[in-house]
Amino acid sequence: MASVSGAEAALATHVESRLRAVPSLDVERVGDNVVASTRGHHATRLLVAGHLDTVPGDPATARIEGDRLIGLGACDMKGSLAVMLELAEDPTPRAVEVTWVFYAREEIARAQSGLLELAQLRPDLLQADAAVLAEPTDGAVEAGCQGSLRALVTLRGARAHTARPYTGRNAIHRLGALLSRLASYEPRVVDLDGVVYTEQLQCVAVEGGVAANVVPDLARCTINHRVAPDRSIDEAGEWLRGYVADLLDDDDVFEVLDGAPPAPPAMGNIRLAALAAATGRPVRGKVGWTDVATFFELDIPATNFGAGDPRLAHRSDEYVTLVQLDDFAAALAAWLR
Amino acid sequence: MASVSGAEAALATHVESRLRAVPSLDVERVGDNVVASTRGHHATRLLVAGHLDTVPGDPATARIEGDRLIGLGACDMKGSLAVMLELAEDPTPRAVEVTWVFYAREEIARAQSGLLELAQLRPDLLQADAAVLAEPTDGAVEAGCQGSLRALVTLRGARAHTARPYTGRNAIHRLGALLSRLASYEPRVVDLDGVVYTEQLQCVAVEGGVAANVVPDLARCTINHRVAPDRSIDEAGEWLRGYVADLLDDDDVFEVLDGAPPAPPAMGNIRLAALAAATGRPVRGKVGWTDVATFFELDIPATNFGAGDPRLAHRSDEYVTLVQLDDFAAALAAWLR
Repeated sequence: MASVSGAEAALATHVESRLRAVPSLDVERVGDNVVASTRGHHATRLLVAGHLDTVPGDPATARIEGDRLIGLGACDMKGSLAVMLELAEDPTPRAVEVTWVFYAREEIARAQSGLLELAQLRPDLLQADAAVLAEPTDGAVEAGCQGSLRALVTLRGARAHTARPYTGRNAIHRLGALLSRLASYEPRVVDLDGVVYTEQLQCVAVEGGVAANVVPDLARCTINHRVAPDRSIDEAGEWLRGYVADLLDDDDVFEVLDGAPPAPPAMGNIRLAALAAATGRPVRGKVGWTDVATFFELDIPATNFGAGDPRLAHRSDEYVTLVQLDDFAAALAAWLR
Repeated sequence: MASVSGAEAALATHVESRLRAVPSLDVERVGDNVVASTRGHHATRLLVAGHLDTVPGDPATARIEGDRLIGLGACDMKGSLAVMLELAEDPTPRAVEVTWVFYAREEIARAQSGLLELAQLRPDLLQADAAVLAEPTDGAVEAGCQGSLRALVTLRGARAHTARPYTGRNAIHRLGALLSRLASYEPRVVDLDGVVYTEQLQCVAVEGGVAANVVPDLARCTINHRVAPDRSIDEAGEWLRGYVADLLDDDDVFEVLDGAPPAPPAMGNIRLAALAAATGRPVRGKVGWTDVATFFELDIPATNFGAGDPRLAHRSDEYVTLVQLDDFAAALAAWLR
C-alpha cells in the first residue's frame, strides 16, 4: 500500500479499522492521523508514536528475502508500525495506560506534520507521562535529537565579459574559499548527561551563472547545520554566521532560512531510563532531527526507540530484519507492562 | 527598430532598400543577410562586414545625450553599421572594389550565424583580398581573435543523510578546491608578431544539490577559457584538462562542450597593415572571439576595426560618441579609397 507523504489516507483507514476492532481502545481519527488510547484507571500513561508516511519511492519493490523485509519504508518505519499495531491488539493486562499514535506527513516540511496537527487540534490526545517515538534506532535508545538549521549565503560580484574578467568580479570563484571552509569543518562533539551528540555542517546546494561568456555576479550556497541540544537554533545560526564571516563582504548576505529545534536527552525521566536499561545497550544521541523535539515542546519526556538501522532510512535498499522486529517488540512490550 | 538575434528581418529590409537605391551596387539578400558589392574593374576587393543583431534588451531606451548615442546595440554595433551605410552610399570614386556585408545572428550560437549561412550558400559573395569586421575596437585595429572554449567538470560524491555525512562524500565540497584553482589562474600572455593576447579562465556556472537534508553526490562546474591564437581549441582543451587533473578522481568527468577557434593576427597583409598605420594607434590583440575567425577559415585576411569601446558591449549603458563615429568613418573611407 503506497503511503508517500500526503497520501496516507488508505493506510490510515486500514490502521483505524484494525484498532477499532480492539474493545479496550478508544479510537479517534483526526485528518489522516489515528490515535488509540486505553481507557483504564492506571495513574501512568505511556505513549508510542510512529509516522505513516514514507519518502517518495516505489512500494512495488517491497519483498521478503529470508528474514528481511526489503523495500521503501521497511526500516523507516513500516516494521515498527507493524509491531505497534500488534502490541495494541495484544490483550495482555498492563499496569499503565497506553496511547498509540499513528500520524501523517513526517517526511516533509514540518509545518505540514500530522503530529503538529494533532498538537493543535487535539492536544488532549497526546497527554502522557512519557513517550516513545518508534523511528529506527537499531534497537537502542537514541536520546533527544539534534536540531537542523538551513542557511543561505549569497556572494556578490560584478558582471563582465569573460575575455576581460578583470573589469568585473567572479562571484562563483569566491565560492571556492567558502566551500573549502565548509569542507574543513571539524564536528563539535557535545556530551550531555553521558549522551554524545556530534554536530555536522554540509553544503547542500550551490547555484550561480549568467551565460557562457559572462563573469557571474551572483553565487548562492545553501548550508545544512545539525545542532546539538545544548544550543538553540538562534545560537547555532549566530555561530555559523561567525564561522564564515571573514569570507563575506558588505554586499554579501548570510541568512538563516529555517530551523527545527533540538531536544535534550531527557534521560532523567525514570520511565525512559528504565526503557534504556531494558535494551541492554548504551544510550546514543540522535544525530538527526525527529519529533522527539515536538514532544519536548509539548513538555512530554520522549525518546527515539525503534527497529531497523537508521543509516538505511531513505535509501532505495532499506530493510528491516525479523530479529530486529522481535527484539523491538519484546523491549516495547516489557516497557508497557 | 528592434533587432535582437533572430528578429533582424525588418532591419535587413531597411538596409536592403537603402543599398538598392545606390546605382553602383549589386545587392543580394540571402535570408536576413544583405550583401552589396561594387561591380567595377579594380584588381583589389576589400570587404567590410557588420552584424545586424543585438543581444536581448529594450531598444526603447535608445536616446541621444549631447554627442552620445546611448542604448541597446549603440556600441555593438549600430554606430558602425550607420557609418558602413553612409560610406556605401558615398559616390566618391575609389581605386578598389568594395563589398558591404550586413549579416544576422552574430550574438547567439555560432551554428546559427548569418555569416556562416552566407559562407555555405553564397561563398562567392564573400570573396575579397582583405576584410574589416566592424566590431567595436575603440578606433584601433584589434588583430585576429582569441578562441573560446567551454568545458564542463562533473565531480562525483556519494549521497548520505546530512546528520551522518561521513557515510557519504559531498561532491559540492569538492568544488571548493576546483574553484580556488580557477580563481588563482595567472593569465598566459602571448606575443604574436608584436600583437599581444591575454588568455583567461573563468567559471561561468555551478550547480549541485539534491535536498536540504542530503549530502549531494554530484556537482557541476562550467568553465570558459579564452584561447590565444598560438593554440588550437583541442590543444587548449588538453591544457585545461591537465590544469585541473590532480583535483579529479576516476569517476569524475572533464569534457570540452564546444569551442570557437582563434584566428592569428594576419598583420603581415599589407592592406591590413596600412589600415593599422592609418589609425595612428598600436595594434592590439582581440581578446574576445569574433567572426575574424570565420574569415580566417575562408582564407581571407581580416581584422577587427570599429567605433566604440568594446568594454561597453552587452552592457545596459552602452553608448557610442559622435567623435568615435567620425574617426572611424574617416579611417575606413581612407582605407577604401
